[in-house]
Amino acid sequence: MKLSDLQTPCLILDKSRVERNCARMSARAKELGVALRPHMKTGKSAEIAKIATAGQTGGVTVSTLAEAEYLFEHGFADILYAVSIPPSKLDRAAALTAEGADLKILIDSVEVAEAIAAHPGSHAALIEIDCGEHRTGVDHDNDRLLAIARILDTSPRARLAGVMTHAGHSYRGRTPEDMKAVASVERDAAVAAAELIRADGIACMIVSVGSTPTALYADHLDGVTEMRPGVYTLGDLFQAGIGSHGIDDIASSVVASVISHNKARGTLILDAGGIALSKDRSTEALGKDGDMGFGLLADLETGKPLHDLTIRGTHQEHGEVHLPDPSLFEELPIGARVRVLPNHVCMTVAAYENYEVFEEGSDEIIARWDRRNGW
Amino acid sequence: MKLSDLQTPCLILDKSRVERNCARMSARAKELGVALRPHMKTGKSAEIAKIATAGQTGGVTVSTLAEAEYLFEHGFADILYAVSIPPSKLDRAAALTAEGADLKILIDSVEVAEAIAAHPGSHAALIEIDCGEHRTGVDHDNDRLLAIARILDTSPRARLAGVMTHAGHSYRGRTPEDMKAVASVERDAAVAAAELIRADGIACMIVSVGSTPTALYADHLDGVTEMRPGVYTLGDLFQAGIGSHGIDDIASSVVASVISHNKARGTLILDAGGIALSKDRSTEALGKDGDMGFGLLADLETGKPLHDLTIRGTHQEHGEVHLPDPSLFEELPIGARVRVLPNHVCMTVAAYENYEVFEEGSDEIIARWDRRNGW
Repeated sequence: MKLSDLQTPCLILDKSRVERNCARMSARAKELGVALRPHMKTGKSAEIAKIATAGQTGGVTVSTLAEAEYLFEHGFADILYAVSIPPSKLDRAAALTAEGADLKILIDSVEVAEAIAAHPGSHAALIEIDCGEHRTGVDHDNDRLLAIARILDTSPRARLAGVMTHAGHSYRGRTPEDMKAVASVERDAAVAAAELIRADGIACMIVSVGSTPTALYADHLDGVTEMRPGVYTLGDLFQAGIGSHGIDDIASSVVASVISHNKARGTLILDAGGIALSKDRSTEALGKDGDMGFGLLADLETGKPLHDLTIRGTHQEHGEVHLPDPSLFEELPIGARVRVLPNHVCMTVAAYENYEVFEEGSDEIIARWDRRNGW
Repeated sequence: MKLSDLQTPCLILDKSRVERNCARMSARAKELGVALRPHMKTGKSAEIAKIATAGQTGGVTVSTLAEAEYLFEHGFADILYAVSIPPSKLDRAAALTAEGADLKILIDSVEVAEAIAAHPGSHAALIEIDCGEHRTGVDHDNDRLLAIARILDTSPRARLAGVMTHAGHSYRGRTPEDMKAVASVERDAAVAAAELIRADGIACMIVSVGSTPTALYADHLDGVTEMRPGVYTLGDLFQAGIGSHGIDDIASSVVASVISHNKARGTLILDAGGIALSKDRSTEALGKDGDMGFGLLADLETGKPLHDLTIRGTHQEHGEVHLPDPSLFEELPIGARVRVLPNHVCMTVAAYENYEVFEEGSDEIIARWDRRNGW
């Protein structure tokens, strides 16, 4: 099977790029002196997790209990479920712990701390710290932080495993200086929270920070024990736009076929629409020059961008491309296949059950790797 | 199992509402004197297809070959695959026909007509007419229309089954008058194309029009043989916003749990984010009063909207809700469950493999219905 034999739309993965992206982040973690706990919310694949954790002991991060269960089945024991857990999910988390997983859950409220303390299962929890994104988490100097820590510390079946924070607002940065500043605030908030807890006589082993941009730009991570970037494993147009990596590092894309020409309007239609690409428009925030619509077209074989063509509109199963020059209809006849590089890879790959895997410089499909979608 | 026992996020379906929505569209098709060929791109479920086709003989419409294969396995033979087919998919279409399906494919180019004529399999095709959306299709009076018809008509293994058009631009209408006008243009374009083909001595049995708004608002469909609305089966906030149905007709929604409170900012976080809801923002086009963000919160048991609360921001697994009044934190404590009504249901349900089915007025889950995602 070759790239050009695949049914479209489908999801392809350049294993060489994943390995390169992961090696770079591993080296970066070593340079910073912290463990790398890669976030598998992007890849959701045991094979990608194996590449991302090569040579590391930091375990993995997940965004759903389904990912946690799947990775545990594939031999990963040290798992951080990095989304606030409601009481109704404690049974499922405890079942995984009872099976032998070293699962860490995440909380930011006294209510859930009390639910954990009252729950019949065993739980290790991290407290989420808000370092400025203001989505979830407690302030690092808030009374709530110690209240939660004390409940966990005094509960017979619960354990405070540490603190974590996520500088999601690093995505709003546009320069290395912006990223460095956010990374510094992220680190300081996590470390200060850990110190406050320790000053209260409570152990706080893990000090975890995250996000691909702050992992790349942090000056240092003194006091931090691990980092949890995720999107770097596959890369996307938004991360390329903010300088996290190059366009040539984007490892996953959608293969699509040209299915219709509208020569009067200068548009062609691909069979990759809103479901195949997602409706994510992250690059819109990068301004006119950085806006890649719903994805950037690239050559099927080389992966190089094709005349900067982007998908400007989507319907459920249709993606619309405006051609600046009528000669491009000949270059892209009906039936031609292209890659579409993703705007926000976590969203795009979510529509697929598998990756069709190849290596850079070859058009041979060498494997099919599964993904664990759903919850 | 009850609604309140479901793991979140998950997809629920009110069977009573599906039946009501489908009965109304069936009655409407009878009133217009046309067959109803419901578009299963929304539901992607054999059980929903059975409800939607009750008492009809018009077969079904699909948006992927995967849907076609799935519905054929579930006993549906008369299937229109209503997305332009590229040559690479002809083998798969022909295989379905060889197994006994009465599959109709869709084309709008001489190139694909020639590929069909040269293909070893048997094919029945409809020609797509552009009635003003300008996405795909040929103009109803374009030379290309007859050129395609003649190739199919003279090919030994191919058959011209008819013409179809889709007034996707009806979604831009805001008043019954807008919809009536688009419906009239849609009908006229399809009928004119069929008459042009017939005047050339070629049979053109099927004259197919589509879209939920035009199906509801057309004055008459004289000359048309069938209609293909789809989103009406489940309904959504955008369709409610343009008057296709009421909020109380929305049959499918996402159950989510409150997982975090940020009292200082007046926000709460649900465990339904960009993947669980999709990033679709269709209702943005309805203006400030009609904009429902990424979804409208509703009571878990009754399905009634909750204080007009909407999801204003999403991350991958987080949905953010702004509370206008702090007392709502008590009404929606951490762990509370709500329904989130979808902005654009076709996109939202695409993230799920199953519907958890219940009936209006009861909180008992009576069935799990599968969906056929992918391609």
